[in-house]
Amino acid sequence: MSFDRRHFIRGMAMAGMAADADADDGAKPATVGEPKNATRNLARFVVASRLDDVPSAVRKEAARTLLNWAGCAVGGSRHETVNIAVGALSPFSGPAQATLLGRKERMDVMNAALINGIAAHIFDYDDTHLRTVIHPAGPVASAILALSEYRPIAGRDFVHALVLGVEVECRIGNSVYPAHYDAGWHITGTAGVFGSAAAAGKLLGLNEQQMVWALGIAATQPTGLKEMFGTMTKSFHPGRAAHSGLTAAFLASRNFTSSDQPLEAKAGWMNVLSTSRDYTELSKRIGQTYEISLNTYKPFACGVVVHPAIDGCIQLRNQYKLTADQIDRIDLRVHPLVLELTGKKTPKTGLEGKFSVYYAAAIAIVKGAAGEREFSDSLVSDPTIVGLRDRVTATVDPSVGEAQVKIAITLRDGRRLEKSVQKVIGSIENPLSDSALEAKFLDLSSGILPEARARKMIELCWSAEKLASAGEIAKSAATI
Amino acid sequence: MSFDRRHFIRGMAMAGMAADADADDGAKPATVGEPKNATRNLARFVVASRLDDVPSAVRKEAARTLLNWAGCAVGGSRHETVNIAVGALSPFSGPAQATLLGRKERMDVMNAALINGIAAHIFDYDDTHLRTVIHPAGPVASAILALSEYRPIAGRDFVHALVLGVEVECRIGNSVYPAHYDAGWHITGTAGVFGSAAAAGKLLGLNEQQMVWALGIAATQPTGLKEMFGTMTKSFHPGRAAHSGLTAAFLASRNFTSSDQPLEAKAGWMNVLSTSRDYTELSKRIGQTYEISLNTYKPFACGVVVHPAIDGCIQLRNQYKLTADQIDRIDLRVHPLVLELTGKKTPKTGLEGKFSVYYAAAIAIVKGAAGEREFSDSLVSDPTIVGLRDRVTATVDPSVGEAQVKIAITLRDGRRLEKSVQKVIGSIENPLSDSALEAKFLDLSSGILPEARARKMIELCWSAEKLASAGEIAKSAATI
Repeated sequence: MSFDRRHFIRGMAMAGMAADADADDGAKPATVGEPKNATRNLARFVVASRLDDVPSAVRKEAARTLLNWAGCAVGGSRHETVNIAVGALSPFSGPAQATLLGRKERMDVMNAALINGIAAHIFDYDDTHLRTVIHPAGPVASAILALSEYRPIAGRDFVHALVLGVEVECRIGNSVYPAHYDAGWHITGTAGVFGSAAAAGKLLGLNEQQMVWALGIAATQPTGLKEMFGTMTKSFHPGRAAHSGLTAAFLASRNFTSSDQPLEAKAGWMNVLSTSRDYTELSKRIGQTYEISLNTYKPFACGVVVHPAIDGCIQLRNQYKLTADQIDRIDLRVHPLVLELTGKKTPKTGLEGKFSVYYAAAIAIVKGAAGEREFSDSLVSDPTIVGLRDRVTATVDPSVGEAQVKIAITLRDGRRLEKSVQKVIGSIENPLSDSALEAKFLDLSSGILPEARARKMIELCWSAEKLASAGEIAKSAATI
Repeated sequence: MSFDRRHFIRGMAMAGMAADADADDGAKPATVGEPKNATRNLARFVVASRLDDVPSAVRKEAARTLLNWAGCAVGGSRHETVNIAVGALSPFSGPAQATLLGRKERMDVMNAALINGIAAHIFDYDDTHLRTVIHPAGPVASAILALSEYRPIAGRDFVHALVLGVEVECRIGNSVYPAHYDAGWHITGTAGVFGSAAAAGKLLGLNEQQMVWALGIAATQPTGLKEMFGTMTKSFHPGRAAHSGLTAAFLASRNFTSSDQPLEAKAGWMNVLSTSRDYTELSKRIGQTYEISLNTYKPFACGVVVHPAIDGCIQLRNQYKLTADQIDRIDLRVHPLVLELTGKKTPKTGLEGKFSVYYAAAIAIVKGAAGEREFSDSLVSDPTIVGLRDRVTATVDPSVGEAQVKIAITLRDGRRLEKSVQKVIGSIENPLSDSALEAKFLDLSSGILPEARARKMIELCWSAEKLASAGEIAKSAATI
């Protein structure tokens, strides 16, 4: 991978984070709130929580999170990164307990969680908890779905565990973001392991002390340096977080002891892995608000800074039934980060296409979409698209926010079409619709699952809470 | 475990480290030396090294390291910590590829490395690289011995890999100690994973680029917070380091990519996990000196601060054929840390006995040894030993160094026997003899391996370099 994606991905994170980052002006003290019993209180909440306490809107968001994650896992399942990991680890796998989504192999629970966790992150297309840049589903769903094929787990318990796992990892993330991330940690792995441990621990019926220990065994296994961005090892992080969290939960379920203060102790996770921490984030309004409600899903398979341009171009295309040959030129007025991070004028590969706002605008017009398949090597070289791409200009406009764009399309017939995107699709304010999530799933699974199977899996995700066995969801994604 | 061992163990480390800690006066800059190509140069050394380049004295020390590790692993193999881990993880284990030393179960290579790595650390009786407080064999030997039962690995290649793995983990440790340890990391796990990856990678025949990636996949999986000291999770650390390093090597062998600068990059391991680093430690005199030559082995199953008192008492006992009833009183003049860390006058359990210099002196006289079995609950309550224990006094003497003690024994017949220990047994200056290592092994394996099997295993360790298959060593430690 000759192109350095690291700066780009960090830029995406920054763009998504802008509102919160401004609020955190860096002047706050290194420690806020009361550390005492921080881990125990969190463990107690997880152990005591009942699904009936969780509002239906939150449970609905869990289904959306699950569907989005499942699509990403199926979509990434045939990638070279996954092929290598399966090949390298299969000789050591235990019984065929759990499905590798989108593949024919089955592995033991631990390894299946690892592989599905890798697969779901490969396209950088998974869900995002914008405040922390955590991709929350990967570590949690990968762990508990594999577990659901090994133990009988009712759908409602599965959904509940998913909500709680996301709650734990994101609250821990909230308490150390951005210092922890800025220190160099890939927070999806380092905080994700707590989500996996908590969710798996809930399903294993851990008591409060065991849950504390599970969080402790999780704390001592942080996986993920940001230095790995741009390499296969980035996707390894949520997979290993799922695997390590499951290990933690199983060990704790048999009273394998760890610290009673793994988060808050002087040599605990929050002090060792972050230069600042806010303990109030762990407990404030816990059980009243749910972090999974703040989850977002990418509509396009590239960094968020280019999403407004794609969104606006697709809207204009659909409104005016535009084709490439009608268009004389496309003029974009964009936030500065867009050119800084995606200013590549003549991308040569699909991956490079993700770093070109010019290509992104062109593909949006021609295909009306920007999923993973729209960033293929062949489309990047397609003469029609290349021709339109070269008729795109992009100018920095200080009045345009990171989630915004101003588009002017001049047609060959002289007409001028304009679009100003204020709240990009996929943001919390303008979330992806259920049908758009379904379309994303179908797009990702196309060529891997037959469409009927894909539609069945969509249905299982939507109705997850009603399933007698959550393992059905995984089984529906096995291929022959 | 109601007694807090953490401070004690840190104290032991400090005691062992004193000479070096004085040299590192804390005034050195945060970064020393040239980061450029730090990882690649280390990888190149490992890949290019040939066993014939390694002096015979170094290879001999590798055999001593192996024997000491094997005894600790067998000795710890029946501990509750291991029973729990085996029970929790067995359902997910792959084929029965590798021996759990001292047990009848076999597990896949990855899990066997994990379990043996846990077992070898349980008694805190394993080897110590004093400069970094790394227990080097655990992560490395656990990984490559399990690997040796899966692939045919000649004894000479095994010994070579052990030397190189220890070299890599200890050089990385040297470069960040003490800042990394002081930040809260259990360096045996966090640096150990590099040793496991390098040693396993060498045996898998990785090329230079793959070795860089293996070190990268290792770097992103640091296991071990010091907060876990005093709990079962402490022993988990070298086990997970063995497991994660093996995973890294197998992934890299199939070209699973990671960073090319995992140690030295801005977001790499050395910057993220330590506040200071000395790159010269990675390369200076590499291939001319070997860190395994600096390895030490504990003669007694307790913290090093009490070792001088035990050493001196055993010497006097043996010289004068002393028995408890001959002794009127024992007066010890000790370093201040001894009373600070092991001043418990009336220990009630075997574990508490390790924190009592009074008990330690008494058991040394009565048993002439202080192995794991001398710290049993029953001996701690034995009337003869308790009687003698209560006739021991200990006084701080500023002229006594951490590795020293002055002993005066007054006999009931009026004689006064004196002993001044200047260089405690087990130190680099006064290393444990081969026969003492054998006796330690026999003591640890007693009750687990029949003596003939134990003697065979000792012989296999001594002759490791000549074995056609290193896996024989593991097989010799399987029980029925």
